[in-house]
Amino acid sequence: MKEISGGVCAPKGFSAGGVWCGIKASSRKRDLGLIYSEKPCAAAAMFTSNRVQAASVLVSRENLAGGKIRALIANSGNANACTGETGLFAARRMAELAAAELSRKGAELKAADVAVASTGVIGVPLPIGVIAEGMGALVESLRRDEAGHTAALEAIMTTDTREKEGALEFDLGGVPVRIGAMAKGSGMIHPNMATMLCFVTTDAALAPPLLDLALRRAVKRSFNRVTVDGDTSTNDTIILMANGASGNEPVIQDDAAYELFAEALEKLCVKLARAMARDGEGASRLVSVTVSGAADEDSACVLAKSVASSSLVKAACFGADANWGRILCALGYAGPEFNPDTTDLWFKSAAGEIAVCRGGVSLPFSEDTAKRILSQDEIEIIICLGAPGSAAGADRAAGTGTATVWGCDLSYDYVKINGDYRS
Amino acid sequence: MKEISGGVCAPKGFSAGGVWCGIKASSRKRDLGLIYSEKPCAAAAMFTSNRVQAASVLVSRENLAGGKIRALIANSGNANACTGETGLFAARRMAELAAAELSRKGAELKAADVAVASTGVIGVPLPIGVIAEGMGALVESLRRDEAGHTAALEAIMTTDTREKEGALEFDLGGVPVRIGAMAKGSGMIHPNMATMLCFVTTDAALAPPLLDLALRRAVKRSFNRVTVDGDTSTNDTIILMANGASGNEPVIQDDAAYELFAEALEKLCVKLARAMARDGEGASRLVSVTVSGAADEDSACVLAKSVASSSLVKAACFGADANWGRILCALGYAGPEFNPDTTDLWFKSAAGEIAVCRGGVSLPFSEDTAKRILSQDEIEIIICLGAPGSAAGADRAAGTGTATVWGCDLSYDYVKINGDYRS
Repeated sequence: MKEISGGVCAPKGFSAGGVWCGIKASSRKRDLGLIYSEKPCAAAAMFTSNRVQAASVLVSRENLAGGKIRALIANSGNANACTGETGLFAARRMAELAAAELSRKGAELKAADVAVASTGVIGVPLPIGVIAEGMGALVESLRRDEAGHTAALEAIMTTDTREKEGALEFDLGGVPVRIGAMAKGSGMIHPNMATMLCFVTTDAALAPPLLDLALRRAVKRSFNRVTVDGDTSTNDTIILMANGASGNEPVIQDDAAYELFAEALEKLCVKLARAMARDGEGASRLVSVTVSGAADEDSACVLAKSVASSSLVKAACFGADANWGRILCALGYAGPEFNPDTTDLWFKSAAGEIAVCRGGVSLPFSEDTAKRILSQDEIEIIICLGAPGSAAGADRAAGTGTATVWGCDLSYDYVKINGDYRS
Repeated sequence: MKEISGGVCAPKGFSAGGVWCGIKASSRKRDLGLIYSEKPCAAAAMFTSNRVQAASVLVSRENLAGGKIRALIANSGNANACTGETGLFAARRMAELAAAELSRKGAELKAADVAVASTGVIGVPLPIGVIAEGMGALVESLRRDEAGHTAALEAIMTTDTREKEGALEFDLGGVPVRIGAMAKGSGMIHPNMATMLCFVTTDAALAPPLLDLALRRAVKRSFNRVTVDGDTSTNDTIILMANGASGNEPVIQDDAAYELFAEALEKLCVKLARAMARDGEGASRLVSVTVSGAADEDSACVLAKSVASSSLVKAACFGADANWGRILCALGYAGPEFNPDTTDLWFKSAAGEIAVCRGGVSLPFSEDTAKRILSQDEIEIIICLGAPGSAAGADRAAGTGTATVWGCDLSYDYVKINGDYRS
């Protein structure tokens, strides 16, 4: 398995493009992107669990219900959420316009073949007029190389300060196949905006149920383990398109080939998810929290998330303060059962590793060393429950559940970015 | 029912005091407080639900198990949490020392008659030596007037910037009775510290089960509806002592007299809870969130808490930004079912009231007016679910569940206070 360039255009048979059409009124940054597959695609998707769902999410749910799409149109600068019937009409129209323009170029698509995604300010009507006007240029901008990928990626970025993308190549039954991905999101939700968007392409052929299974597993272990501010948005969307253009023997059961594909997808999603946490609004550090020894993986995840989401822990990370009591406290109110008296804690980074708590009580440690370790760009909080290192733990069965969650610190800039007036 | 002065010393038969004994090493601020009842008290208490519980909480649970205490000793500067066996010993010793010193003055108390509470830094051994040395002066400091109350209150304050206290007098079966209270807490949890502490005294006589019932109801509608940073601490404690010194006919059933007492207690607790939210770390505004039209009171409370706890909503309040989309979004991920399409939102303060969203979509409103309203010290977010104001809502049954939750904004100062190094 090797990393390659090209993003969503790396897999065979995909092209992408992006233009500025005028949704972002105050800049000339790209705001409309398109990903197109020459062949029909099997598709899998997951959407936000928020009860308030953007019009684009509702329309994409409809269009993806059959499990097949050919294209995906996305805009930034407007979330098309809390926009009522007008918003639904605009989202449907966006798919229709894209299908019509692609068909005019000879592709023969229906509106139902196009998924729609939006990100940006909530509660403002989507300016469908400028999207219609820009559609010709958007389809013209489609390219099969990395430049196409980059243009589409730029078109979905909002407050992101870095690009989240990647592609992998690996051998599937003797045939080289590729997966490419792009994502936007610098927080689970943005200033006045919503949305994590992630689009994944692959030229592998997999039966739709397996595609779905692999996507759910990858998302569970990547994007669902990112926490920036705990808010989940109205627009969160991830769509995976598989066109089978690599010519591999289609994967139709949960075998070694499926496992390989699923692993590759998870690896790519974890890369993007980490980048998202690293790019959290105002974040100065990536904070990884690993819990081991929990009853099961889900419990480990809930405990790790509680730590990574705690405002007090996040603020301590910003201050590079080895305030481990807050970590124990956040574990304590997370919900899953554990024994504080057999809990060990470490801090770790490129600058070293330090044990700060054993069996639930303080270890003597150098505050200076701890501060140096916590002052790095990427820091790890490592929590071992029912740890053998503690006397009381020796006679208690520690669970085998382990999970890592990615978050970031809470900085002045988070408040600044999110407290500032929308305009 | 009238507000009176005197705090926990307002009810008959109670005295209080406070001294500096040296737990707070870097200042000469009071750090050890005592509340004492001349007569035996029926007592009710509630403690943190965090799995990590301070030693003082564990010891107070033991001593309060019989439902009777005479005194309550509390310290600030050290939470006595995550301190293992040594911590338990220290907490028990603290009760013993107080009982012995009070007995030396002729009171005849056992250690089990004394409740213990601590607040301060987690994970540092409680310096029981300085507490022992200060015990004589502490008992000497007991006074039956407001000065005693104030000294005890000062002794439990940490980052609090204002005093949280109050007392009420009302007629119970023809006899004037009083309830007095003090609390500390400027967040659900503090920088490096834990704890909301609240101590309530009354000279009313009530059967212990009713005392317990009234306390649970009052806490549910007051302290359990405050959210500053979402963290619940290792030390949260509320203790109610009733010595019956007013001479009222003991309340033994859930009748009008009980209802009156319960209402008074709730009123006092709400006053302290609001003061706590107002004093949230770094807070510049008190933010009240009221949800009506929910399925029931609990659902309304969960929805309102989700809004009041959202970092994005809190940051918007700091910026006086009428970013109502974030409010709808926070309702959406709260859990309880509701229909976004029949949801109306208003902002309200001393500067006026403005409707910003009706039936889940934007209303045209003046951003300037909204900003003026949101720039006040106290602001209200009013959310009506299944609102008759929206066409779609007219044919849907709106629930009758209503709840108000108190929180504060998220400011630069929150990050500063909590990101700073502990020392």
